[in-house]
Amino acid sequence: TGRLSLIAGPCQMESRDHAFMVAGTLKELCAKLGIGLVYKSSFDKANRTSLSAERGIGLEKGMEVFADLKKEFGFPVITDVHTAEQCAEVAKVVDVLQIPAFLCRQTDLLIAAARTGRVVNVKKGQFLAPWDMKNVLKKLNASGNPNVLLCERGASFGYNTLVSDMRSLPIMAAMGAPVIFDATHSVAQPGGQGDSSGGQREFVETLARAAVATGIAGVFLETHQDPDNAPSDGPNMVYLKDMPRLLEKLLAFDAIAKA
Amino acid sequence: TGRLSLIAGPCQMESRDHAFMVAGTLKELCAKLGIGLVYKSSFDKANRTSLSAERGIGLEKGMEVFADLKKEFGFPVITDVHTAEQCAEVAKVVDVLQIPAFLCRQTDLLIAAARTGRVVNVKKGQFLAPWDMKNVLKKLNASGNPNVLLCERGASFGYNTLVSDMRSLPIMAAMGAPVIFDATHSVAQPGGQGDSSGGQREFVETLARAAVATGIAGVFLETHQDPDNAPSDGPNMVYLKDMPRLLEKLLAFDAIAKA
Amino acid sequence: TGRLSLIAGPCQMESRDHAFMVAGTLKELCAKLGIGLVYKSSFDKANRTSLSAERGIGLEKGMEVFADLKKEFGFPVITDVHTAEQCAEVAKVVDVLQIPAFLCRQTDLLIAAARTGRVVNVKKGQFLAPWDMKNVLKKLNASGNPNVLLCERGASFGYNTLVSDMRSLPIMAAMGAPVIFDATHSVAQPGGQGDSSGGQREFVETLARAAVATGIAGVFLETHQDPDNAPSDGPNMVYLKDMPRLLEKLLAFDAIAKA
Amino acid sequence: TGRLSLIAGPCQMESRDHAFMVAGTLKELCAKLGIGLVYKSSFDKANRTSLSAERGIGLEKGMEVFADLKKEFGFPVITDVHTAEQCAEVAKVVDVLQIPAFLCRQTDLLIAAARTGRVVNVKKGQFLAPWDMKNVLKKLNASGNPNVLLCERGASFGYNTLVSDMRSLPIMAAMGAPVIFDATHSVAQPGGQGDSSGGQREFVETLARAAVATGIAGVFLETHQDPDNAPSDGPNMVYLKDMPRLLEKLLAFDAIAKA
Repeated sequence: TGRLSLIAGPCQMESRDHAFMVAGTLKELCAKLGIGLVYKSSFDKANRTSLSAERGIGLEKGMEVFADLKKEFGFPVITDVHTAEQCAEVAKVVDVLQIPAFLCRQTDLLIAAARTGRVVNVKKGQFLAPWDMKNVLKKLNASGNPNVLLCERGASFGYNTLVSDMRSLPIMAAMGAPVIFDATHSVAQPGGQGDSSGGQREFVETLARAAVATGIAGVFLETHQDPDNAPSDGPNMVYLKDMPRLLEKLLAFDAIAKA
Repeated sequence: TGRLSLIAGPCQMESRDHAFMVAGTLKELCAKLGIGLVYKSSFDKANRTSLSAERGIGLEKGMEVFADLKKEFGFPVITDVHTAEQCAEVAKVVDVLQIPAFLCRQTDLLIAAARTGRVVNVKKGQFLAPWDMKNVLKKLNASGNPNVLLCERGASFGYNTLVSDMRSLPIMAAMGAPVIFDATHSVAQPGGQGDSSGGQREFVETLARAAVATGIAGVFLETHQDPDNAPSDGPNMVYLKDMPRLLEKLLAFDAIAKA
Repeated sequence: TGRLSLIAGPCQMESRDHAFMVAGTLKELCAKLGIGLVYKSSFDKANRTSLSAERGIGLEKGMEVFADLKKEFGFPVITDVHTAEQCAEVAKVVDVLQIPAFLCRQTDLLIAAARTGRVVNVKKGQFLAPWDMKNVLKKLNASGNPNVLLCERGASFGYNTLVSDMRSLPIMAAMGAPVIFDATHSVAQPGGQGDSSGGQREFVETLARAAVATGIAGVFLETHQDPDNAPSDGPNMVYLKDMPRLLEKLLAFDAIAKA
Repeated sequence: TGRLSLIAGPCQMESRDHAFMVAGTLKELCAKLGIGLVYKSSFDKANRTSLSAERGIGLEKGMEVFADLKKEFGFPVITDVHTAEQCAEVAKVVDVLQIPAFLCRQTDLLIAAARTGRVVNVKKGQFLAPWDMKNVLKKLNASGNPNVLLCERGASFGYNTLVSDMRSLPIMAAMGAPVIFDATHSVAQPGGQGDSSGGQREFVETLARAAVATGIAGVFLETHQDPDNAPSDGPNMVYLKDMPRLLEKLLAFDAIAKA
């Protein structure tokens, strides 16, 4: 197994300028550290806690910006899809289609994503056991797509709380798919602020270190220059300025994990 | 609050003949017991554990049968919708649109269902706290639809297990919506049989009694003349022949609960 | 199975006068309702959250008061034991020895309690599955005591939260022991107030109704004339003045459950 | 913070010869790796699932062997205490008194252990949140003992399952006490084999790596030359022959964690 990869970016695509700023910073950092980057942002937040919360830049505009980012920086990009219809359109530009955790059992969405031929990153549902993901993987493989990433992002643990069971990482790896640990949403507190989700940024590093030490293919980290003013997932995004030190640490653990 | 209502029917719409057989039996039984019936069946099982599992009769054929059932028996019908696009089409015939638990946070689906003007029954996600449902309710109400039912169907409790927290029933009732207890899916064991979900039919009555005793608007019970050979949810459906005794018991508890 | 029994009293034995006041009120009420009463109080709270919290009246004084209560009112009494050494001493006076939930796997305590020949009421540990109680029951039976009550008081559900799985009641009843539902500690929020446990008195009735509707041998309810000023378990004790209405309701459900 | 320490040994003290064999092997290994060893064994298993399961060598004999082990190998030893009475007796020989998880809220036991002046290692109850341990720590400190270790060993997660929440490690460390991760009992499956507990030896390394990467004071690992024939905790003990490679790996992670 190769070196740790990174899926990173701001939760939402806020604007072309913002995307270019964050992408440029991450590109430079990853080049310096020798870590493969897949740039992540969402063009639509389809399951916000509240109706009045910011939804995002939209599909059409989002695809334009992703295309420009790819041309400028040369990295692959990842974004989440919410309906079967979106898949083919998104796949024209985006390299990795991400299936949101709540939707990881929706057969039509899985089939449509698989049929694009793009890599599919499936978030494990908060309501699933790690071994249940073999059925999700089978749906994707049986639809003709062998390129699947399985992503841990926490399991429901009582109310408004997720827990990261590190055993899930080797369990899913044994299914033959590269495993990603989403250290951003694993520290989310769903519904924890009443009309929005809370988060525990202070535990991102704890969980990321733990996951990387078990030996995983990649880590997923949402990041922002000013998380507390970001339109979504602010409480659990990492400060962009803290990424260098965090990634250096994770790479050191990764080297030991795979020695 | 009025008398206990019943949402019942086979999990899947298997065929016109089968639908008429079950519907006729339930209609007669409910008339005899003086219990309001909403007939339930799914035209598509969109999130089966396995790709090869039976999906169902399909939307077009399903709507035809629902229309005929309504004409014959005069009861309202309920079915689940999976995409925003389906809502308007389904609402031409179906009286109550049901939002599946996994999809209860999908904003576009909630808005589309709400805008049909039909009653919307939202299953509480296995990953949500009861108080989180106020945000779901708000999305529906803010989309112009005051006619919402909130449905408990179990919360994630470790792996492959759901638990029914009876406190959720008064918590959701306090939001002002009628509360339904789904005694069929509350005894499901998600992923419990490896490539399909298991269930504990033997606890349907236990949980239904408990829920009715707390004082609820309605109970949801899937039923079949031969559950072990049904195409889905067999392990947790009630035998059609056991419905009379079960409903009589529940009505007796309901009378005490609301005295 | 006979009529619902009641285990009730204030959490702590506060003083002789207080014990006689509550006992007299409960005795009169139960005589009127025709419900069998086992009077409960603790002489020592051995696992308080905080060291400075009130421990109780002590064993010697406690036994004196229990003896006087029994002479005056003629009811059996129940109290919890915390060490093997206490069992024989307590059994001289007390009719039912209660094993606290945290201690339900302590072999020496179980053996000592069993060997007194008194009835033993074991609280199911918050960390146990209902089917695990068959091993606890076996330890007691194998120590020569067939008179065991099994008591549900909630299972750990994430942090600082308990959930009552109503399936546990028939599961434990199938082991051949009478099953008690503790509606007081089932609504506790362990550690929920930082340096003491919280509680949700408002859900005592919800859970008690639910449990009784499944058909149980008895209900356990701590009660106090002024819970908010009680030395322990205040947030989840029922007001003494609310007991008549609550018990009448529960008896009505019990009659249906056992019809 | 210093280098990772190790608490290790066979679950039960089986015999003097067996203790010397395992202790000698561990002593040599730890000397070679430069890791501080605290030798662990239980003289009594006080909460076995089943009455007929092996209890152990007993207090008196156990203390003799511990004294001889200390004389021969010069390491400190740790064992668990179950009653307040045992504490002073055990403390004559044993350097670290361990409070079992089920008993971590028993005030008298905590006070008695604290008053011996020995170091106290408290296992966090499976039913406690990490932040609840500050009350346990306070009970020990307020009894005059500042030398407390806090030990994570998994939290209840549904039935017969524990989950290790790695966030608990920094949360407890912030209370000012050294934190130990028990990688043996964290992979236990309480009651998982019907009349005994199961375990997942294959995940010991996964969880130990994860915990060490977060930066902890010590790791707790039960080990045996032939776990499958050990009298207790066989399914989750590590093969003695696998300890060198495992510890080398953990020390490499520890160095990065504390760099």
